[in-house]
Amino acid sequence: MVFAGLSDLLQSLEALKFDDSDLEFLKEAGFDKTFLSYLESFRFSGEVEAMREGEIVFPGEPVLLVRGNIIEAQLIESLLLNILNFQSLIATKAARMRQSAGDCTLIDFGLRRAQGLGSIHASRAAVIGGFDSTSHTFGAKLYDIKSTGTQAHSWIESFQDELEAFRAYAKAFPNNCFFLVDTYNTLRSGVPNAITVAKEMEENGQKLRGIRLDSGDLSYLSKKSRKMLDTAGLGYVQIAVSNQLDEHIIKSLREQDSPIDVFGVGTSLVTGKTDAALDGVYKLSSFDGVPRLKISDNKEKTILPGQKSVYRFTDGDNCFVADGIFTQGEKENRIHHPADQQKHMETSSLTGEALLKVQMENGKRSHPVESLENIYSFSKSRLHQLPPEHKRFENPHEYKIGVGEKLLQLRSTMIENIRNKFTSQ
Amino acid sequence: MVFAGLSDLLQSLEALKFDDSDLEFLKEAGFDKTFLSYLESFRFSGEVEAMREGEIVFPGEPVLLVRGNIIEAQLIESLLLNILNFQSLIATKAARMRQSAGDCTLIDFGLRRAQGLGSIHASRAAVIGGFDSTSHTFGAKLYDIKSTGTQAHSWIESFQDELEAFRAYAKAFPNNCFFLVDTYNTLRSGVPNAITVAKEMEENGQKLRGIRLDSGDLSYLSKKSRKMLDTAGLGYVQIAVSNQLDEHIIKSLREQDSPIDVFGVGTSLVTGKTDAALDGVYKLSSFDGVPRLKISDNKEKTILPGQKSVYRFTDGDNCFVADGIFTQGEKENRIHHPADQQKHMETSSLTGEALLKVQMENGKRSHPVESLENIYSFSKSRLHQLPPEHKRFENPHEYKIGVGEKLLQLRSTMIENIRNKFTSQ
Repeated sequence: MVFAGLSDLLQSLEALKFDDSDLEFLKEAGFDKTFLSYLESFRFSGEVEAMREGEIVFPGEPVLLVRGNIIEAQLIESLLLNILNFQSLIATKAARMRQSAGDCTLIDFGLRRAQGLGSIHASRAAVIGGFDSTSHTFGAKLYDIKSTGTQAHSWIESFQDELEAFRAYAKAFPNNCFFLVDTYNTLRSGVPNAITVAKEMEENGQKLRGIRLDSGDLSYLSKKSRKMLDTAGLGYVQIAVSNQLDEHIIKSLREQDSPIDVFGVGTSLVTGKTDAALDGVYKLSSFDGVPRLKISDNKEKTILPGQKSVYRFTDGDNCFVADGIFTQGEKENRIHHPADQQKHMETSSLTGEALLKVQMENGKRSHPVESLENIYSFSKSRLHQLPPEHKRFENPHEYKIGVGEKLLQLRSTMIENIRNKFTSQ
Repeated sequence: MVFAGLSDLLQSLEALKFDDSDLEFLKEAGFDKTFLSYLESFRFSGEVEAMREGEIVFPGEPVLLVRGNIIEAQLIESLLLNILNFQSLIATKAARMRQSAGDCTLIDFGLRRAQGLGSIHASRAAVIGGFDSTSHTFGAKLYDIKSTGTQAHSWIESFQDELEAFRAYAKAFPNNCFFLVDTYNTLRSGVPNAITVAKEMEENGQKLRGIRLDSGDLSYLSKKSRKMLDTAGLGYVQIAVSNQLDEHIIKSLREQDSPIDVFGVGTSLVTGKTDAALDGVYKLSSFDGVPRLKISDNKEKTILPGQKSVYRFTDGDNCFVADGIFTQGEKENRIHHPADQQKHMETSSLTGEALLKVQMENGKRSHPVESLENIYSFSKSRLHQLPPEHKRFENPHEYKIGVGEKLLQLRSTMIENIRNKFTSQ
């Protein structure tokens, strides 16, 4: 996954407090005075170690570590998971679309189908994953994202005919003019009218930027439209498409050599469809300096105990080879398969880089806010270091994630101790 | 679907305005002074007709109609779709879960996996669909929803052992005490420790409310736990379950006679998983009193023109039989299948009820805000009027939605006129 949301999380932690109406609500819910007066002056004062925003992360790895007193560390659980799970989901989805789209332009068109106010953070995360701009004006304003759009069907319908609608639009937006060509019939009405107005714009020294296809077979229509535009000497007019796109459809359209320049993606991008949630968890793994462990009747819900570090191992070509999870301060030169200890790998010939860095101390950020541009450019370079066999959509090659021997032994001993306790009862 | 979000939409329309920072942003984006000064004093002053919140709606039906000038009607498009699509999605999902859960308690546990701030409206919509309470404290405060919760794994892990953790929790929450029993081992540690503390509570005149199972086979474990609790004379202690529940798993658990009292549902509820979005659209259907139409290369994207009304037809048992869509003021006694006009149905022997009612005039709400309780109770009674064959999950019987002849003729004539225009060019 592409790790995203860190900056918003840190900002929320800095701002976190309980106002009078919150305290009133909690009082009515039955909480006692001592606790309420604790909350009244509450500020998060803990420490956060985390991966850099935009980092590529693999299953089972700790992406973030909170050190603080038990109350502050616990109070922030839902806030933390809500922000990181969602933005990481969308940044990952966006990165998959970027992978399919190559150098084409990607625009976030998702606001109308987004999950309520989730739209705001979806637009931010989309940029971290590689989107160029958004039609979500408020998101653009809040996060300094480039805001773009094309034309609505209602604009065209509000005129007596399509040609007149295009002319009025060209007059209003001469420098950023995209015509939506499917209101009545793409090839028989929309594209011919767009060509007529593009020619009129040329006479005024203006250039039509593009047309948008929003229904029908986008591959067939883009090829037909391209030919019509080129025949009219409008080779510079771009073709944008939209309508239930996702990474697979974008990939397929490009494999068919569809002459498409811009993809507008809505629902699948901002909801992560078909996976609407990322199941990151937040668990107590150490208390008073002593490692803690939750076992579970579902094996995959058993965590690794104690404070941990994550190392990424790269080879001579600077490619990712494997990640290792260790007890903090106990990096080893051999990593083991987490479920099958017989399987192991030597890492001494590889370069190891620690991924968790201090991001917040005493409740204050350790670093200035990074621009989305920088976060994307970091993420892009990291994805580039990951060999393509791990990035294919169908049956990707599993990336090696190993665990240090000391950490595995710690977990075994703790499970044994816990089991002994209740079997002896 | 269960129609939800109307009240929030109307509130947003009443509050909608552009502040200085918005205008500054739009100015930098290149919009001209005249438009910006229009926006500066902009308030939505239109009229809204809509179905009542909580109404049951079928495919293709207009749920809401906006009358206003073209700018105000257009500016609100994304806002309107964002609110109504998402809340209707979640209310519908919640109603399906309520259908499976019978009289059991349903708690929204979704905050940590919700799509960012979408969590807030998800919690509201869950109640409209039939949920009893939420663990999302901020949502509870904002919408006056009952707030509940159980116990975190971290509470238990922060103590030396589980028994001690349960005792401390019982002391802190004697009146609303639920123990999470799967931290180490449900049947060998969690349930026995819960029984021990429940007995100690009885000595203090207190009663343990319940235990929560959060992993393993919930049917098997609930039966085993129920037997252990009953044998200990704790027949009153409830069993709550959680862990990736949805309407199908809840149904299956109840079909297996699992003795479960409370279902805590997270991800699937608040994200609508496996359907992360509802594809409602907002289209210009009339301008200057003249019906307008968008055709499309995808047949299902072609809309019905003009201002429309929706009638629900009920039989002598007060059950829903069919819905009819007509041109406003043109209710007829025969409705036609929208895609196959040969298929039609007489409605004269049935009672017809108009579903779209005025909800806002001159930008002000026509009715006071309804409580969520009332909305749910209306929705529940409407679902009760819908025969069960339409509500089953697998291959449900299709509900009849017909269109009046005049409206179908209007559409045919308009399509013909539009086609004639570009074929004659």
